[in-house]
Amino acid sequence: MTGRTYAIGVDFGSESGRAVLVDIANGQEIATAVHSYANGVIDEALPGTDIRLEPDWALQDPNDYLEVFKQTIPAVMQQSGVDPADVIGLGIDFTACTMLPTTTDGTPLCFLPEWRNHPHAWVKLWKHHAAQDEANKLNQSARDLGYTFLDRYGGKISSEWFFPKAWQILDEAPEVYAAADRLIEAADWVVWQLTGVETRNECTAGYKAIWSKSEGFPPNEFFKALDPRLEHIVDEKMSRTLAPLGSKAGELTPQAAEWTGLRPGIAVAVANVDAHVTLPVTGTIEPGTMVLIMGTSTCDVMVGEELQELPDVPGMCGVVDGGIVPGMLGYEAGQSGVGDIFAWFVEHGVPPEYHQAAQQRNLSLHTMLEEEAAKLKPGESGLLALDWWNGNRSTLVDVDLSGLLIGMTLATKAPEIYRALIEATAYGTREIIETLNQSGVPVRRLVAAGGLPERNQLLMQIYADVTQHEISIVRSPQAPAVGSAMHGAVAAGVEAGGYGDIATAAQHMGGLRSETFRPIPEHVKVYDRLFAEYKTLYDYFGRGQNDVMKRLRALRRETLSAAGKAEEARLANAASPDAIEQQALD
Amino acid sequence: MTGRTYAIGVDFGSESGRAVLVDIANGQEIATAVHSYANGVIDEALPGTDIRLEPDWALQDPNDYLEVFKQTIPAVMQQSGVDPADVIGLGIDFTACTMLPTTTDGTPLCFLPEWRNHPHAWVKLWKHHAAQDEANKLNQSARDLGYTFLDRYGGKISSEWFFPKAWQILDEAPEVYAAADRLIEAADWVVWQLTGVETRNECTAGYKAIWSKSEGFPPNEFFKALDPRLEHIVDEKMSRTLAPLGSKAGELTPQAAEWTGLRPGIAVAVANVDAHVTLPVTGTIEPGTMVLIMGTSTCDVMVGEELQELPDVPGMCGVVDGGIVPGMLGYEAGQSGVGDIFAWFVEHGVPPEYHQAAQQRNLSLHTMLEEEAAKLKPGESGLLALDWWNGNRSTLVDVDLSGLLIGMTLATKAPEIYRALIEATAYGTREIIETLNQSGVPVRRLVAAGGLPERNQLLMQIYADVTQHEISIVRSPQAPAVGSAMHGAVAAGVEAGGYGDIATAAQHMGGLRSETFRPIPEHVKVYDRLFAEYKTLYDYFGRGQNDVMKRLRALRRETLSAAGKAEEARLANAASPDAIEQQALD
Repeated sequence: MTGRTYAIGVDFGSESGRAVLVDIANGQEIATAVHSYANGVIDEALPGTDIRLEPDWALQDPNDYLEVFKQTIPAVMQQSGVDPADVIGLGIDFTACTMLPTTTDGTPLCFLPEWRNHPHAWVKLWKHHAAQDEANKLNQSARDLGYTFLDRYGGKISSEWFFPKAWQILDEAPEVYAAADRLIEAADWVVWQLTGVETRNECTAGYKAIWSKSEGFPPNEFFKALDPRLEHIVDEKMSRTLAPLGSKAGELTPQAAEWTGLRPGIAVAVANVDAHVTLPVTGTIEPGTMVLIMGTSTCDVMVGEELQELPDVPGMCGVVDGGIVPGMLGYEAGQSGVGDIFAWFVEHGVPPEYHQAAQQRNLSLHTMLEEEAAKLKPGESGLLALDWWNGNRSTLVDVDLSGLLIGMTLATKAPEIYRALIEATAYGTREIIETLNQSGVPVRRLVAAGGLPERNQLLMQIYADVTQHEISIVRSPQAPAVGSAMHGAVAAGVEAGGYGDIATAAQHMGGLRSETFRPIPEHVKVYDRLFAEYKTLYDYFGRGQNDVMKRLRALRRETLSAAGKAEEARLANAASPDAIEQQALD
Repeated sequence: MTGRTYAIGVDFGSESGRAVLVDIANGQEIATAVHSYANGVIDEALPGTDIRLEPDWALQDPNDYLEVFKQTIPAVMQQSGVDPADVIGLGIDFTACTMLPTTTDGTPLCFLPEWRNHPHAWVKLWKHHAAQDEANKLNQSARDLGYTFLDRYGGKISSEWFFPKAWQILDEAPEVYAAADRLIEAADWVVWQLTGVETRNECTAGYKAIWSKSEGFPPNEFFKALDPRLEHIVDEKMSRTLAPLGSKAGELTPQAAEWTGLRPGIAVAVANVDAHVTLPVTGTIEPGTMVLIMGTSTCDVMVGEELQELPDVPGMCGVVDGGIVPGMLGYEAGQSGVGDIFAWFVEHGVPPEYHQAAQQRNLSLHTMLEEEAAKLKPGESGLLALDWWNGNRSTLVDVDLSGLLIGMTLATKAPEIYRALIEATAYGTREIIETLNQSGVPVRRLVAAGGLPERNQLLMQIYADVTQHEISIVRSPQAPAVGSAMHGAVAAGVEAGGYGDIATAAQHMGGLRSETFRPIPEHVKVYDRLFAEYKTLYDYFGRGQNDVMKRLRALRRETLSAAGKAEEARLANAASPDAIEQQALD
């Protein structure tokens, strides 16, 4: 041992996993390595088979997660030259709800030959959207039966969450459901693989599985009312014992030590969620600091003092006691489309001249458009958008809402639209902040993390101007992995050279860049006027005054389903051997 | 003479003029020739000078019009080999209001060295939009003083029309106004050049200069109230004698005969407007047949029986007795952006893959997008648009409205937007038809003419599906020029081998294609639902419930003007010789 101690954080994303080796004393990132999942997001066919998946399905292969450990940890150790004896803790964070069925010993059903060809035996990724029926029924029942737990989730459970996904397995593949001794978050599953101990963390349980510290899970009668076979799901396939964040899940097994090149026995922290784990990376854990993790979508997390009664914040993703750090309320809100919307525009709405100019200047098209958009003053484009290309997660909690762009003239150009889209996502953030403020959960400070703030100065300036908050940026460009390492250091504890709690770890290992984005007074004035317009349209289209977006979407579904039926009929009519063969090949 | 007789029609567009030589017996187009204006649309600097024009200005050079006669008529004569002795009449149509100041003998002021460098001495093209202040003041005064003539124009005079343009000359260049013995439509001016006789046609006077057969021009007191110097504008610079359409303006002068190679003395018809002259080209002149002249914008013209009292049709461009054919009411409505909107999208909103695919297949991008859009079913895109990229001409008469697109998701693709834009313009047409129907002016039949129906099958099918009318297409792809030739044949009269009236000429020289577009019942059902959504948004954004479009536009103007002032201040501050020189060069 050199006296210096290190922790490793592993951040599991949708397409890859990343390990970062961090100096526990100061949070310095010593080495980093990324491994892309061999099977990525599985949304067309089961790997190595012709077994097609239905639309809205999104699966993953748990072996890809193990490969992340096997590839990235040895890589950071080798790069850094750090002595494995000095690595005292390991933490992980994951997308959520990403869940899988396993046997009692944690073997994923999809690893077993008898289940390998069954889609329901695989990991359901967070963006698996095929359990909407189950989510709808669950929400309806909860309301009908007078349960109040929905209040903690803005009034609605998402189809992305744990019980709709579990119920979908039961509905569509009761044999898989029966064979699943355990149903578990992938976050907890990878920790199980490292430690040999099955734990369940309070964060995913609280935000994705309707658990709360005071009330636990919904009662068995509720699940029974959904489906008698679900009555004992918690006791049979889950656990009522939840571990607080920062606690030690267990110690690295000899096998996991072999995979990773680390010492057996080092502390492994309880699992965490990618967004939530980022909050301490800001360096301070204080009520009123909202952290925006901005990427394809944006997740907003904030802590608050524990209260007698949970505040009722309309359209939040969740309020969970201890959901971000133990002993505090954790608020989560978010915008379901941010970077995704800009990417959509760049891919589908920009004429060749800009592509060519970007190529000639060796810039990304995003950078090129940002440069052009930055030449415009607030209000100059004459455009306004509603940022609902991917629905609205907060505060309306409505996936059937859609995008809107208004103000186009024959002179409107692509960079003006690009700027209007950025502005729209900033208005969406302001709407979330104002809702929190009005619900007695004041937002006092903004800190941004994630891929977007790294690259996009104009975006950050617009967010400052629109929200009227100075915005700081987290120092680390790999914030979630650093947050996970922080949790590893806390799991290791003071005696091993780590920390006693997350707040102390945050103080030493987290921090902000010195550069901040401050509201520009003239811009603030204009954006106040534009936000008022946004708000009027937000309410008009989002709160039932004109449900045209939902009717357009319903009509689209109707049209596509009619077209599908007509196509089936056509194929059935053309039932020559050739036609049938063609159908089978499709 | 061979027994066969011919007429020539000359159609003056915004960028070029076109002559067509037509067989009077059957309307067959024997030869055609186009001449592009050397000076085109003058909107940056006066030709051959550094004299800059302000934004919204659009001028033309009257010499370009003369060149059209000198180039195109000899060309069609040569191409066709027709004996000039067999050409018995000539008619012209023009954009309107396109007007100019001249001396008593018809010499344009801009031909005179002392005025050549003065922008106000040139032709103001229809789309010269710099007289908005004058239009606003005129409309306000008319309302304040209780005049009812605005009722004939949907309640508002456009800044494009005659008196705002004339008043702008007076306001900004009283010396030019004083020097202008005559203020005249370019349509009438070119006829003057051919015949040596100053005439004024009822069509441009009725639709663009607030004239009506029963009431004449607004009274002198009205003009006096606007500006005392305007009191006698009609008597001093215009004329109260208006010539009905199809009448003979005069006979070709020896000089004009020399320009064109035609016989001196042949009949020249009174001038006409490009849209209005197209109606008889359909072959029949009957109340209830609306003719859509579809190009960059769409003009709708229809005739009706003369009535005791003019019907009050909200938001029409104009109702003029004899404005299309003598003895009937002429209705004009229109959509200010149609082909222009599709062109905007093709230029500004389509990613490279479609450009490349179109190029590879040697198709225009429009054709390529139409092909893709045609694969979609009504309702499938989930999109809806308001077709106001260029404001709304009918039924809202509001240039400050702007475009709207709703329903976008991360899966939305360019051909879906292209189709939604086509659909939006079709809804706009249906709104005009329904307004006419509700005002007691029933639309029974639709006929399309112009550039768009020529090329765009999907567009025509969508218009049929949305309007629930079978749509016929005018036989001639050069309908306005043929319409002008028809008027030339009527001006020549029966004895010379022409016709006695426009209806008879139409019967012989006009006609429709046999192919029509019929509404498809399943499409009609879906479009009925979508039109209801369009209508709700139309009223919400267009009739004052939410004036966000106007506020966005006002903010844009404010921003640009503040930016302009800041730039001026910056330049004034940086008043080094270099800076000043730079300013002069800009």
